[in-house]
Amino acid sequence: MLDILFELVQSWSVKNEGIYTIDEIKEWYYYLNNSLRVNISFTEYEADSEWAYNSDTDRIERRSGSFFSIAGLINSQEQVEQPVILQQEIGYLGMITQMQNGVLHFLIQAKIEPGNVNKVQLSPTIQATHSNFTKVHKGAAPKYLEYFLEAGKHKIIFDQIQSEQSSRFLGKRNRNIVIYVDESVEIELYDNYRWVTLGQIKELMKIDNIVNMDTRTVISCIPFSTLEKDENINYLSQFSDKILGRSVLYSDFRPYEIAKMYHYINNYKMFHLEHSKVCGLSELPNWYWDGSMFVSDKYKNFRVIFCDVEIEKREVLKWQQPLFQASGNALFALAYRISDGIMEFLVQCKPESGCFDQIELAPTWQLEANERKNLEKNNFGKILLKKIEKGIDIRNHVLLSEEGGRFYHEQNENIIFELNSGEVKQAPGSSEGYFWLTYNELNTSMLYNNVLNIQLRNLLSILSDSNG
Amino acid sequence: MLDILFELVQSWSVKNEGIYTIDEIKEWYYYLNNSLRVNISFTEYEADSEWAYNSDTDRIERRSGSFFSIAGLINSQEQVEQPVILQQEIGYLGMITQMQNGVLHFLIQAKIEPGNVNKVQLSPTIQATHSNFTKVHKGAAPKYLEYFLEAGKHKIIFDQIQSEQSSRFLGKRNRNIVIYVDESVEIELYDNYRWVTLGQIKELMKIDNIVNMDTRTVISCIPFSTLEKDENINYLSQFSDKILGRSVLYSDFRPYEIAKMYHYINNYKMFHLEHSKVCGLSELPNWYWDGSMFVSDKYKNFRVIFCDVEIEKREVLKWQQPLFQASGNALFALAYRISDGIMEFLVQCKPESGCFDQIELAPTWQLEANERKNLEKNNFGKILLKKIEKGIDIRNHVLLSEEGGRFYHEQNENIIFELNSGEVKQAPGSSEGYFWLTYNELNTSMLYNNVLNIQLRNLLSILSDSNG
Repeated sequence: MLDILFELVQSWSVKNEGIYTIDEIKEWYYYLNNSLRVNISFTEYEADSEWAYNSDTDRIERRSGSFFSIAGLINSQEQVEQPVILQQEIGYLGMITQMQNGVLHFLIQAKIEPGNVNKVQLSPTIQATHSNFTKVHKGAAPKYLEYFLEAGKHKIIFDQIQSEQSSRFLGKRNRNIVIYVDESVEIELYDNYRWVTLGQIKELMKIDNIVNMDTRTVISCIPFSTLEKDENINYLSQFSDKILGRSVLYSDFRPYEIAKMYHYINNYKMFHLEHSKVCGLSELPNWYWDGSMFVSDKYKNFRVIFCDVEIEKREVLKWQQPLFQASGNALFALAYRISDGIMEFLVQCKPESGCFDQIELAPTWQLEANERKNLEKNNFGKILLKKIEKGIDIRNHVLLSEEGGRFYHEQNENIIFELNSGEVKQAPGSSEGYFWLTYNELNTSMLYNNVLNIQLRNLLSILSDSNG
Repeated sequence: MLDILFELVQSWSVKNEGIYTIDEIKEWYYYLNNSLRVNISFTEYEADSEWAYNSDTDRIERRSGSFFSIAGLINSQEQVEQPVILQQEIGYLGMITQMQNGVLHFLIQAKIEPGNVNKVQLSPTIQATHSNFTKVHKGAAPKYLEYFLEAGKHKIIFDQIQSEQSSRFLGKRNRNIVIYVDESVEIELYDNYRWVTLGQIKELMKIDNIVNMDTRTVISCIPFSTLEKDENINYLSQFSDKILGRSVLYSDFRPYEIAKMYHYINNYKMFHLEHSKVCGLSELPNWYWDGSMFVSDKYKNFRVIFCDVEIEKREVLKWQQPLFQASGNALFALAYRISDGIMEFLVQCKPESGCFDQIELAPTWQLEANERKNLEKNNFGKILLKKIEKGIDIRNHVLLSEEGGRFYHEQNENIIFELNSGEVKQAPGSSEGYFWLTYNELNTSMLYNNVLNIQLRNLLSILSDSNG
């Protein structure tokens, strides 16, 4: 029987022997990105426009109904006071895979999102809110929807609901799903879709702002660690970086480490009984309207703006909508050490204001633009600053975007870096909620919902084979 | 290094070579149970009593404040209309283990709970709500609390927050934790506490209403499947039932089965957007006060009663409180089949009205007393009825109690039974949310929160070695 996880490992190693070479994919991407005109500009907020502040509900809402709105979130015990996006429904972030020319390929889409730094980014096969395919938009059904609605007909490689940015959304989750469709099924290829290998996706992730957030979270969830090994196959031959290969396929799952990590998480859940509460925007004492923007002088991570969006393709589409604008680039950095030839990642248990279950695992550093100065405040932070400055021990370093449908030009710095044994001694420990976990432990945990946050998942997704 | 999971496997096999023999433990239990006088009786509800209906909040509350209250829960889409216990805080259900005479022992407590069928049942080392050890009760701290508050000093075998009865509570969860304390630490032994082996606990679970709900859920979570095997040890020699031993220690973890199961669960979460809402008791149209009871003629699973409780020990303790009274014994039955010498358990994805995240895994059959007649309605149900009648293929069959602090004399029938290959064909399938999972898959899933419901966890806890 075809072992799809092994095919996935092999697909990771293919950069040029797929249907297209990596250069052809890049050419296609840049062509689409350049042939499209997107204008996005700050706009004057007008009370009678489609999106507006509704004084009855004390929220920002779409007049004709929508699947999201913006309310306040408050928790005095935890110093939380902010606008928050309410979007309870769960959407699909789904990827179709199929064997093509003997290599497993992913069906990706070049998709426009209004807030993106690049106008077009590469998204999963389907990226659709529940409303997209039911009532609110009343448009055509999203392409390839039927494959996911009837996924039981195919092989489901992975299916889990995972959190999104919990400092901006209240308990928002999307459904990450990867299915494998048999070769005998002919899948129609629509405009702006392409079959690419996993190796090609990983290669594109090394370039700023090409692979979108949704593709990254879906890719992060592939359960490589659960691959059942056949003694006669040399799996490591698929990896040029043997340490990475061993970490992905052969690292341990240590129940006591999971227990220690949950001990910290459960202490947090047990002793923090005061949960954040949704309130009206006018109930946020330190936030106010500054012309067309909703801002705070005290809480400066982001503000709410209104934008005019115009997309010129075959026809011209225009609309206005609110977006969250971050105060600058956040930093998401994941440290690892090599122990007995296996990578161990330093993750932190991080509470976030809108977290579905209060706290999830986050990367070593997860700093809003305003918080980046914290790096200079302690020796462990200085280690990272020095590595960035000198360009050493940095495995990945790339600017990647958050969701363009809610965030305005939000791109964040994603770094994976190595610590040597001396530096490891400076790292914070378990009493501060930091734990060294293997790839297997993180990967297995993603089979379950709401364990790893999106920043950590997306960093894991960009782990690439050839150090570059 | 001492491998505690292996010590746990060995402790399972010890029934008489612990500190006490199994008969000595039984004698101790019956002595305590008989030497105590507990009177519990229905009482007239009085508006000025300590626990009363508060018309301002439209709930049943304790006048001087309490960590739980009773409100209404409603969801028209899902036909939910019922009183529900609100108890947001998370308590400890914790067990201390230690090597004693070369065998790993658990420190259990003979504990009185007012609603219990037996006055005393065997509970974990600690069973304490957050309020117990903070403010509401103002009594002495629970015994052994310090071991759990400072669990980091010891070895944490397991630590996870798990759900309780989601048809009675709204999102209630408790913290299941097992710690291992080094032999060098002398642990004081208080009145009504005893060191027992896992084999003895399993043996006591075969007797009606001795081992309480909290002990069962804690025991269910021991991560046997994650035991790292040493090739030189014959682990199976610890089991007289080799099929059980292989299932517990050597069964597979199949990621595609987990994905299929979550596919069903995620469909449910994605397409059931109308969540249950808390309301006042007077807003439940089909519920009314019948004298001192809050009842419904339409929803007959349980009613709310008020009881006078009197416990006579060294001193006499008296109080009044509300309890939920079920309409009879519920049935929790877990089917398994043997496939290639390994047990596979038939579990269902079951939504429940007060579930923390809408839906969890439940046993094959989970029927309220009123629903037991459903067994007669289809061929698969009739298989179980016939097995019970003839007493064949029944591995475990025992009456066990739910929590005596909230439920009045609630004892439920717990059954584990085997299906042969012909009978398996009658079983419901994945399209109805039923899946065949291995012990490893269920056991690993319990490392994460809110995957298995309490009925399923507690059935797994009573799995015993010698078929009896």
